[in-house]
Amino acid sequence: MTAREIETELLQMGRDARDAAKVLRQTPRDVKDIALRATARALRKRSAETLAANAEDIAAARDLTPAMRDRLFLGSTHIETIARGLEEIAALPDPVGRELAHWTRPNGLDIRRIATPIGVIGIIYESRPNVTADAGALCLKSGNAVILRGGSEALRSSLAIHAALEDGLREAGLPKTAIQLIRTSDRAAVGAMLKGLNGTIDLIVPRGGKSLVARVQEEARVPVLAHLEGICHVYVHAAADLAMARAIVVNAKMRRTGVCGAAETILLDRAILASHGPAVLKDLAGKGCEIRGDEAVRSIFPEALPATEEDWRTEYLDAIVAMRVVDGIDEAIRHIETYGSQHTDSIVTEDANAAEHLLGALDSAIVMWNASTQFADGGEFGMGAEIGIGTGKLHARGPVGVEQLTTFKYVVRGRGQVRP
Amino acid sequence: MTAREIETELLQMGRDARDAAKVLRQTPRDVKDIALRATARALRKRSAETLAANAEDIAAARDLTPAMRDRLFLGSTHIETIARGLEEIAALPDPVGRELAHWTRPNGLDIRRIATPIGVIGIIYESRPNVTADAGALCLKSGNAVILRGGSEALRSSLAIHAALEDGLREAGLPKTAIQLIRTSDRAAVGAMLKGLNGTIDLIVPRGGKSLVARVQEEARVPVLAHLEGICHVYVHAAADLAMARAIVVNAKMRRTGVCGAAETILLDRAILASHGPAVLKDLAGKGCEIRGDEAVRSIFPEALPATEEDWRTEYLDAIVAMRVVDGIDEAIRHIETYGSQHTDSIVTEDANAAEHLLGALDSAIVMWNASTQFADGGEFGMGAEIGIGTGKLHARGPVGVEQLTTFKYVVRGRGQVRP
Repeated sequence: MTAREIETELLQMGRDARDAAKVLRQTPRDVKDIALRATARALRKRSAETLAANAEDIAAARDLTPAMRDRLFLGSTHIETIARGLEEIAALPDPVGRELAHWTRPNGLDIRRIATPIGVIGIIYESRPNVTADAGALCLKSGNAVILRGGSEALRSSLAIHAALEDGLREAGLPKTAIQLIRTSDRAAVGAMLKGLNGTIDLIVPRGGKSLVARVQEEARVPVLAHLEGICHVYVHAAADLAMARAIVVNAKMRRTGVCGAAETILLDRAILASHGPAVLKDLAGKGCEIRGDEAVRSIFPEALPATEEDWRTEYLDAIVAMRVVDGIDEAIRHIETYGSQHTDSIVTEDANAAEHLLGALDSAIVMWNASTQFADGGEFGMGAEIGIGTGKLHARGPVGVEQLTTFKYVVRGRGQVRP
Repeated sequence: MTAREIETELLQMGRDARDAAKVLRQTPRDVKDIALRATARALRKRSAETLAANAEDIAAARDLTPAMRDRLFLGSTHIETIARGLEEIAALPDPVGRELAHWTRPNGLDIRRIATPIGVIGIIYESRPNVTADAGALCLKSGNAVILRGGSEALRSSLAIHAALEDGLREAGLPKTAIQLIRTSDRAAVGAMLKGLNGTIDLIVPRGGKSLVARVQEEARVPVLAHLEGICHVYVHAAADLAMARAIVVNAKMRRTGVCGAAETILLDRAILASHGPAVLKDLAGKGCEIRGDEAVRSIFPEALPATEEDWRTEYLDAIVAMRVVDGIDEAIRHIETYGSQHTDSIVTEDANAAEHLLGALDSAIVMWNASTQFADGGEFGMGAEIGIGTGKLHARGPVGVEQLTTFKYVVRGRGQVRP
């Protein structure tokens, strides 16, 4: 297709999504949940063809690293996990129609703030085919139409999953344009989405690596919910319990190193360097973590590589940690403000005043006291599935679940009041 | 100054604002309120010099229409109104630190969503000098640093008001960079703000006419809270009470024609055209309103000018109304969806089912039943002063008061929990 044909097709998808959004806005939860459960059934029924499509994607992919293959690969357990995920989303409360606030004015006007769908959401993602189902389902549950644009290397897999989503929509009597998948792998499609498809896209959510998110944030002419990176910190304060500090640091860094809530820098208070430092460092090294430390860290742990300024700014997403010794809580706060990404930062301490000082001072989306940064997750927050984590200042920060995919309107009921 | 010098200066203002925002984020309400009340006192004290500066602005302005002069002019009553407005903002509850949600997870994690300032806000406005004080005060109350850019024709007036704001900040011991006013009238300054001053501006709020808002929405590379226009509707339903319909229509259109919540189009149900139409039309015409109607309207009110397609899309902000006859509620909804601006729309009816149908179907920021659209105002909603009204989908819709100038963070308190 030419760039012009792609644009024409995408603009039509935008108009169709806008029309579908009008229907979805007023669709009762039963109908949305019927579609989600029917999609789960269809996914299981279409399992063989989905796995075959995925095998074709993998066979066609060139220069596939093990990590890339891992992201792209679907087995039958994955299909079952995706299907169960859809059923869990169906079981969530309806985020639409919630009464967020209600008050009455002295003149008798009754004012309510009511949650409503955002409208049309564009999701741009990479090679994880499950995002097709998860993102489609979260948007449907929240009453939004969605236009999905996945990585070209996973297109066959995504098309197979999308067919199940269309089955679900059909079974519920919903327009199949409620969840549309872009079928061309031309990158011009992403550019057109970022321009907003002639005002039809209300919000873009990128799901993927830093370069994808950076491009979306740079080029988008519509609002974006995302985080560029998660440079999360654990600060082991002077009054930290040693056993707790060890458990939290190793969990925050090593439980899963590839998630955005994984800790990337550990700040040790100089007061506990000798008492806590060696055990914390030994735990990490024992789990196979590479240590990059400042002078003070290397003085107690000579195996550590020297950390450079660059290390404080790096999201490794790997078994590597940067470690720095700070002179007290205010230096820790300054470090986090200077190098952090306002994602998730945690303090370990038995001193409530110190904890509250840091919780108040930091402006991260999530600030924690005596807990692992790996809890930065919609599921762990009790929100159900999430579409990602936001670190921007507006609309939603932290985990973005179905509630965060809604907006609101004011409903005002009167008895003929006019304004004096 | 050269464009380069302007940019250098503005980037420094951005850095200063960011630093001030760190202080404001943790400033207790007492201190903010001391600054606001001290500003009110300083405004009264500096009244003579402010009025003199305003007289100079007016003398220097060329081709001043009466409406422009009205917007620019300050008298001593205006100064007193502005000062009282600041005291009212001081009396509002602190929007920062509110607990927006609180829950505990099965693993014992205590999660709170706490309101926090957004950071640095850029306000771009036109010739109303009072915006300097109102916007500065609303940002301060909500803990945000602000960079103000007013119209060049009001620069002397704004500088005089800004001096009072600096007095207030000084008296409270707050950095004077908490509220900065751009002193150059070069338009390049607006362009630099819209680019976000190297990531220091979190949000832009334009206050002014459609062309200003359109430029800001078009060029801004940071989030914008605004409404482009308020094409508000009153739909007089078949079951409308005649006396109520007359009162609401004339108030919604004619109370003040220049506000964004003024009705621009009246939709009359064909069922009440003969019974209600003549009185409603006569009321409006009697108040000096020009009527532009469709064929059916002109059949009962021949003095009406013929309405064109363009009239349904026009925000007159004047004593002109477009009037159309619709065949029932669904045609009314379709008309509003097609031509409205998702600002404020009202239905007049005694039929609760019809009212709820429209309130549910429309996706406007404010939907009303039996009330005048002129209530679309932060003060009338009980929010205190507003910085404007938003019609976008994200963050805030409807009136934008101090609460809407905050965001939130999650504060998670644990007892050493790690993620399994």
